[in-house]
Amino acid sequence: MIYITRRERFNAAHRLFRADFTDEQNLEVFGKCSNPNWHGHNYELFVTVKGEVNPETGFLINLKLLSKLIKEKITDQIDHKNINVEVPFMQGKFASTEVLAMAIWDELEQPIAALDAQLHCIKVFESENNFVEYYGS
Amino acid sequence: MIYITRRERFNAAHRLFRADFTDEQNLEVFGKCSNPNWHGHNYELFVTVKGEVNPETGFLINLKLLSKLIKEKITDQIDHKNINVEVPFMQGKFASTEVLAMAIWDELEQPIAALDAQLHCIKVFESENNFVEYYGS
Amino acid sequence: MIYITRRERFNAAHRLFRADFTDEQNLEVFGKCSNPNWHGHNYELFVTVKGEVNPETGFLINLKLLSKLIKEKITDQIDHKNINVEVPFMQGKFASTEVLAMAIWDELEQPIAALDAQLHCIKVFESENNFVEYYGS
Amino acid sequence: MIYITRRERFNAAHRLFRADFTDEQNLEVFGKCSNPNWHGHNYELFVTVKGEVNPETGFLINLKLLSKLIKEKITDQIDHKNINVEVPFMQGKFASTEVLAMAIWDELEQPIAALDAQLHCIKVFESENNFVEYYGS
Amino acid sequence: MIYITRRERFNAAHRLFRADFTDEQNLEVFGKCSNPNWHGHNYELFVTVKGEVNPETGFLINLKLLSKLIKEKITDQIDHKNINVEVPFMQGKFASTEVLAMAIWDELEQPIAALDAQLHCIKVFESENNFVEYYGS
Amino acid sequence: MIYITRRERFNAAHRLFRADFTDEQNLEVFGKCSNPNWHGHNYELFVTVKGEVNPETGFLINLKLLSKLIKEKITDQIDHKNINVEVPFMQGKFASTEVLAMAIWDELEQPIAALDAQLHCIKVFESENNFVEYYGS
Repeated sequence: MIYITRRERFNAAHRLFRADFTDEQNLEVFGKCSNPNWHGHNYELFVTVKGEVNPETGFLINLKLLSKLIKEKITDQIDHKNINVEVPFMQGKFASTEVLAMAIWDELEQPIAALDAQLHCIKVFESENNFVEYYGS
Repeated sequence: MIYITRRERFNAAHRLFRADFTDEQNLEVFGKCSNPNWHGHNYELFVTVKGEVNPETGFLINLKLLSKLIKEKITDQIDHKNINVEVPFMQGKFASTEVLAMAIWDELEQPIAALDAQLHCIKVFESENNFVEYYGS
Repeated sequence: MIYITRRERFNAAHRLFRADFTDEQNLEVFGKCSNPNWHGHNYELFVTVKGEVNPETGFLINLKLLSKLIKEKITDQIDHKNINVEVPFMQGKFASTEVLAMAIWDELEQPIAALDAQLHCIKVFESENNFVEYYGS
Repeated sequence: MIYITRRERFNAAHRLFRADFTDEQNLEVFGKCSNPNWHGHNYELFVTVKGEVNPETGFLINLKLLSKLIKEKITDQIDHKNINVEVPFMQGKFASTEVLAMAIWDELEQPIAALDAQLHCIKVFESENNFVEYYGS
Repeated sequence: MIYITRRERFNAAHRLFRADFTDEQNLEVFGKCSNPNWHGHNYELFVTVKGEVNPETGFLINLKLLSKLIKEKITDQIDHKNINVEVPFMQGKFASTEVLAMAIWDELEQPIAALDAQLHCIKVFESENNFVEYYGS
Repeated sequence: MIYITRRERFNAAHRLFRADFTDEQNLEVFGKCSNPNWHGHNYELFVTVKGEVNPETGFLINLKLLSKLIKEKITDQIDHKNINVEVPFMQGKFASTEVLAMAIWDELEQPIAALDAQLHCIKVFESENNFVEYYGS
């Protein structure tokens, strides 16, 4: 069993809020992250897959295919977008890094299995000081 | 003459667009950066001041005072904000990194002079791949 | 189960030595790290907590509270201090990165539990080339 | 149980190819990584060992000895070398990062055991966007 | 006058040697960098251009066009290649970082002028510890 | 004219204080940096030299010689030391980053001239947020 990780990046706007809260309530619970005018981040995404090395190719997975898959399923959907408003896989979800990591897992788990590898971890940096890791449920 | 630099960070939303263009025209000129729903960045700001070392303190400038000044004049105004909508020193300006760097210069030049130092350079990273430097006009 | 990590930093002096050794013996065992005049580091601390995402907030933990807790329990005690001499939670302990990571674990485990999360890992970088991870005993 | 990691670096040339393939077949399977004239990387190697802290020294392992061991067994063999052609522990092996990580494990596992510690993980970065982790078979 | 910088990356093999030297002479002068079997690096290239901000666009230069230009003129020619053997703009030249930076300047100076900007600096990192800057002759 | 930079690192203890001040006065002027028990940093030093590329070697300067010189004159004197107490080239000087950069300049200017290059800049990082640059008087 070996683990290989690919980093991709995306820039997006978001805010933390609950639609059933007033702006004042959101401010109290979520602080400046609830700004109704949005703020944004340069997100870094690390996708780790695991499996056995293919004796034919010496690879666990062709990283070009993995990168293309992440681009198609994730970064094309979210880069230079508003996470709360227009990202299909985040519709109706809370735009925290925790929820984002779980949603990215759900988008990638099956397509990676179709490449004969197994998704192991989704790691998302929101800033140089904060990141989330999700290993599936 | 010696140069000392302080790094500060802020997260903000923005879009590149001209109000006198249609969304289609903005898309043609500014690409995905013109997304009407906004996107955002983790900006890094490097403020460089220059001057002589004070023989009393061994300092060019007290970095705590410089950091406090940048916080008050810049990061408190722009962090977790929308650059196009609600940042006082960017009102009516185009939200490119170039214009942002020049606007930050204008905010800091006089207050730094009041600390007996001279503003030398404003450097703003929009991403790990793009940054702007401004040395005054 | 999801994992969230907060980075904090502190600068401190230390030396590696045993009080029951002579300076010569300490030098033989601990090398230049035993310098009786001290040396120091910019330490980076990564605190990882785990738990379930709270469906009310979309958070595992409020990172502001976690950051405040780390500041109060750790960085206020150790930043710009001498680890061997004046850090309460290192009193009587050997000032290696290994022991430091374990001592930080002991300071944070209960207070993090009180925030309804579980401490998962303490990771301490002493330099860009050396770091320690501790997951509890 | 505590984990300590040492980073080392090496620069090397390689290519991905199978000797039983033509250049055209290699190009089809391995893309530009199969260039017969070679390309190269600044590799970063993270060696993680685990064990108990020695109550005599406050150390899990003397990092100077670990660094010396990695230098002797790995970086002296591979730095400024061609991985496919002249690295003893890669003879007859495919020069992918996956295979390289496993080969480094095989070189270090016994010597680290001889230092009374246990090899836990070999992590190799080929670029800022790609890395492999191996925890043994 | 404002300065904007774009980072691009390429991986390449090279060696330092003079064709009129024996391998022994090359080893004496250039050390392990002269290895006849090649070694390689992950190079980082920072291209800085300067000029006035266009009042129509708020840009000094469209970074997409600059990135496309660097890709076409530089990275498509050198990425995953052998600098001594097959890079058109390095033909007959010594493969040091100094000479590489000057050759990249020569490739980019005119095309950047054609974008109504002025090339200011070529900065090339060979490793995290070594880099070269060239501002033109 | 071309510029080449070598990065070196050192870890050291220091405090900011004036011997003619009481501890209370030092605390008032220098804050927690005046702690009488010391604190410390992982310093990063960037030494930039300039000159013409030697047509015989394709080099401005042999980086191995430059690195050896910095080690001999600077890092062997200051690494794992107390800057206020035992670093020859800082004797009787204030241990600020500004003064340190100027003192390193004075140590390196002549020896670099003896290598047929010219010292251009000393850049010292005290932390990821603060650095000083000195270009000579």
